[in-house]
Amino acid sequence: MTHEFARIESYFAPLAGEEGLGLKDDAAILRPPPGRDMVLTADQMLEGVHFFSSDEPGLIARKLLRRNLSDLAAMGAAPMGYLLTIALPVRLPEDWLAAFAKGLEVDQAAFNIRLFGGDSSSSKHGIALTATMLGSVAPGQALRRNGANAGDGIWVTGTIGDAALGLEARRGHLAGAHPYLVKRSTLPTPRLGLALAGIAAAAIDVSDGLVQDLGHMARESGLSAVIRADMVPASPEAAALGEAFLETRLTGGDDYELILAVPPGNGERLKEVCGELSVTRIGVFQPGEGVHVLSASETVLDFAASGWKHF
Amino acid sequence: MTHEFARIESYFAPLAGEEGLGLKDDAAILRPPPGRDMVLTADQMLEGVHFFSSDEPGLIARKLLRRNLSDLAAMGAAPMGYLLTIALPVRLPEDWLAAFAKGLEVDQAAFNIRLFGGDSSSSKHGIALTATMLGSVAPGQALRRNGANAGDGIWVTGTIGDAALGLEARRGHLAGAHPYLVKRSTLPTPRLGLALAGIAAAAIDVSDGLVQDLGHMARESGLSAVIRADMVPASPEAAALGEAFLETRLTGGDDYELILAVPPGNGERLKEVCGELSVTRIGVFQPGEGVHVLSASETVLDFAASGWKHF
Repeated sequence: MTHEFARIESYFAPLAGEEGLGLKDDAAILRPPPGRDMVLTADQMLEGVHFFSSDEPGLIARKLLRRNLSDLAAMGAAPMGYLLTIALPVRLPEDWLAAFAKGLEVDQAAFNIRLFGGDSSSSKHGIALTATMLGSVAPGQALRRNGANAGDGIWVTGTIGDAALGLEARRGHLAGAHPYLVKRSTLPTPRLGLALAGIAAAAIDVSDGLVQDLGHMARESGLSAVIRADMVPASPEAAALGEAFLETRLTGGDDYELILAVPPGNGERLKEVCGELSVTRIGVFQPGEGVHVLSASETVLDFAASGWKHF
Repeated sequence: MTHEFARIESYFAPLAGEEGLGLKDDAAILRPPPGRDMVLTADQMLEGVHFFSSDEPGLIARKLLRRNLSDLAAMGAAPMGYLLTIALPVRLPEDWLAAFAKGLEVDQAAFNIRLFGGDSSSSKHGIALTATMLGSVAPGQALRRNGANAGDGIWVTGTIGDAALGLEARRGHLAGAHPYLVKRSTLPTPRLGLALAGIAAAAIDVSDGLVQDLGHMARESGLSAVIRADMVPASPEAAALGEAFLETRLTGGDDYELILAVPPGNGERLKEVCGELSVTRIGVFQPGEGVHVLSASETVLDFAASGWKHF
């Protein structure tokens, strides 16, 4: 048995759902849930692009799953399972793989998902990881990016900007940052399980930064988005760093909170279905185009960086 | 619009099926074909591991799809579409991506498949590509690796070993090799569309080499496999190179032919459903374990390399 097959048998076969056929066949067989549509997304994480070489392998695994799960959350879908491809340098210690697989196991249990299949290979350079996540949704109930209407409120779940500040801290650029911010960068929480159908008209998750992702939603809906910077919710740990980081918070990525378009009058129902998760109205969709960020005195703020670039 | 979004819009959005929502949403939405099971597989191709940097980008794209399609063929499944992740070095010429997308387009038409979604990223090192292919099969009709019974004939489609010889030629190790062998290495043909249910009891595709892949099938079925080396079909172009390359042919990978377990009496029906594609009986499954390769005089041949290692 070659090294590759031994690795699959040791670390990945125990994670496989019955669809995965023990990872011993050419492909997985999945019976779709009757009367549901399937929702599909794929995301990759590369060493030096999406994570640092020194990051804990279990956290890398969990972030890979959670980034994909967040895409399902943004569609209002319920996750089922995933396929995984890994390419690892030959010299990578076996411990790394064991910790990586343990991370997968922890989050498979946390989100009730199963491994369906995948592929393992050697890599000439860094670590390359891909997950393709499958979920399901009731037909017609998926939340699209293009469903916003003029007058809909712009709402966000949780707090915005923590992950970007956490990344700055991990880079050594932000002394005194609270460990909570670092955790928000390394272990985001996908906002699954919110019964948003009939309450929100559109949704997107914040992966590239609030301004950029809100821009996608506005463009796809044929509208402009106007938000008030002072209304964008900050965690106490982010607020403690002061106003100097406003631009980082509003343009930095990796929060994996949801931006929602919510028709007037649906705010209370939104709060109800979100339960303990805070939701905050930060602006409104209007005719026009672009994202307009206003100060508390309603002057227009201009940011040098409207987009997020992975490090 | 950042470079990544411009690329997706230019090259990939035109390839998307309606499930892909124009590649402008968080995920794809797929209505499963009623009364069918879904079949899922994922494979990656990395620069320097699975292809040479100088390979034509369109052929890389097509081989990526075809490797995955071959896994569906080995399950007896019909392909539907795929998700794609690409990680490209920043300095890669735009021409490369245009030719890569063109290759996808050609094989999407050839195999009637659609792009469902995916992800694009920069890479610090080489090119990294992943496809997750989805297909469907009638419930209970998937061909597994573990379905062989003692007495079943071992059959193969097409000819075996061409791709390994073609790879040797591409490496410059095999002067005088026919271009057909190189083409078999760069552009394999997945054996889709054969109505094998009820005729073959088990199947696997030859990706890692005949001996190794047959070994998987034997082990999963709890049997041994006995084959006659002289009965393993060679193309005229491979045969012209002489007997010195027997081991390369039987242990080299990337042929993407099918190995089938066929109960006695089903051979003629197998030939019928394969039509113009040749199928050849090369041995038999027996009680026991391992793969036993016999010469024409039925002495046991021992190969130094039972497995295939990607270059």
